[in-house]
Amino acid sequence: MKIGIVGFGPFAQFLSNTIIKQGHTVSATSRSDYSHLCSQLGVQFFKYNHNYNYILYLYSFIPSPPKLLSSCSSYTCRDSCAFLDADNDVVLICTSILSLSQVLASLPLGRLKRPLLFVDVLSVKEHPKQVLLQVLPEESDILCTHPMFGPDSGKDGWRDLNFMYEKVRVRDEATCSNFLHIFASEGCRMLEMSCEEHDRLAAKSQFITHTIGRSLAEMDIKPTPIDTKSFQTLIQLKETTTGSSFDLFSGLFTHNRFAKQELENLENALHKVKEMLIQRMNEEQVLQKIE
Amino acid sequence: MKIGIVGFGPFAQFLSNTIIKQGHTVSATSRSDYSHLCSQLGVQFFKYNHNYNYILYLYSFIPSPPKLLSSCSSYTCRDSCAFLDADNDVVLICTSILSLSQVLASLPLGRLKRPLLFVDVLSVKEHPKQVLLQVLPEESDILCTHPMFGPDSGKDGWRDLNFMYEKVRVRDEATCSNFLHIFASEGCRMLEMSCEEHDRLAAKSQFITHTIGRSLAEMDIKPTPIDTKSFQTLIQLKETTTGSSFDLFSGLFTHNRFAKQELENLENALHKVKEMLIQRMNEEQVLQKIE
Repeated sequence: MKIGIVGFGPFAQFLSNTIIKQGHTVSATSRSDYSHLCSQLGVQFFKYNHNYNYILYLYSFIPSPPKLLSSCSSYTCRDSCAFLDADNDVVLICTSILSLSQVLASLPLGRLKRPLLFVDVLSVKEHPKQVLLQVLPEESDILCTHPMFGPDSGKDGWRDLNFMYEKVRVRDEATCSNFLHIFASEGCRMLEMSCEEHDRLAAKSQFITHTIGRSLAEMDIKPTPIDTKSFQTLIQLKETTTGSSFDLFSGLFTHNRFAKQELENLENALHKVKEMLIQRMNEEQVLQKIE
Repeated sequence: MKIGIVGFGPFAQFLSNTIIKQGHTVSATSRSDYSHLCSQLGVQFFKYNHNYNYILYLYSFIPSPPKLLSSCSSYTCRDSCAFLDADNDVVLICTSILSLSQVLASLPLGRLKRPLLFVDVLSVKEHPKQVLLQVLPEESDILCTHPMFGPDSGKDGWRDLNFMYEKVRVRDEATCSNFLHIFASEGCRMLEMSCEEHDRLAAKSQFITHTIGRSLAEMDIKPTPIDTKSFQTLIQLKETTTGSSFDLFSGLFTHNRFAKQELENLENALHKVKEMLIQRMNEEQVLQKIE
């Protein structure tokens, strides 16, 4: 397959290694310049061009913007167009959750020559599903996925790691199936479920995990000479969590409508535990006085 | 060595397995009746007798107590005395943190025939140090220890697991050294440190670990089909934490003077993380409106 990747950060790079190893052809475009890294990996890199709409979007942040240069229209295309013209079978969207809308808005999607399969791998699912349905040409297929692992947990292979997907709009079953085979053939546990169900479960699991990891980082927990095994797993959790970006964490909260309630549940649970401790301490103190 | 264990709950049973394997002779007394289990393990079990003081102590909770039977004095000793008479080299205190004072108060310590080494293995250290210095005969030696592991983390042996100790009052170095050798010979990392330093560090590590485990239990977190590896470690943490008693957790809080501050630090950290999320979400929403 020819796979074009939009957004070539650490997670996309991590996926590319395996995709290339399997013999697929990968090209990429990204807001940062990864041309050097890509040439090492054997990935064709297309520089990212902000299109006219995006320039307008940036202008909106400037209180007194200079007059738009007429040459701005030259930004409309160039490498971004070449990226889309490159006859991909699949466009794999690996942007951050927060930048998804902006990045898609800046791609000249109207130039697509034939229907393609668009796949996203974002860590929330209802949001990209909604955005992709909104901005992609009706003839494009859409597969929303979430590989439940990353460079850290997947460093020794993907066997038995979870891969969630929803076929949001799939007419070309063969291409979709070929794409899913990338993960199935590595031994992933393939889980077909709705984007809504994913977000409901991920708020209870992945988001809470990140929240605890970030809280431990905020407390600045450190190894001690008397660590227990369980505390060592919390140190590891802190490292893993802060190894991913705050953008990711923020995306898990902002674009998952179930996250707010789970954050409240965690706060309430901690509060309840504190109350139980204080109540028990007070009982103890009463006992001691009697004694 | 002949080792008499006071308090024969799961942690004492766990330690006994290895102590017996090393060829030492173990006897035990406990408020619960473990005579059946002990006969299987090859441990001589002495039934626990509440002494007169302890009966008085219990009476203090009864609003209108019946007149004390004169036969109460017969509770003063019997098996508890036999336990102390059994010519132990070491008395190993494995009570819960919360029951330490009561259990020691009920032992006829005045009957000791010769100086002994008293060792405790409680998960806080300043509290038992203070209690032991207060209630034990001046001629008894005192070693305060904390094996930083348990039936779960130590199920595959004790190699490289942390063992903290403070020689609070040791004159018979040979007996103390023999006792420490039980853990050193299993490969534990032996850490000599003050009880105060232990409590300061344990509040930051072990207590916080238990607090998070208990909070996750309070939230009733459960495995989902899309678990990440990190979330699975939190599920495991919840299991390990709730596998130990609430008495233990409560003891870590009530009898470690550094715990309260660390609980506050955790609450503040979670609050700070929440604030960062909400601030970022608000920024995002402003951007979306402009868009």
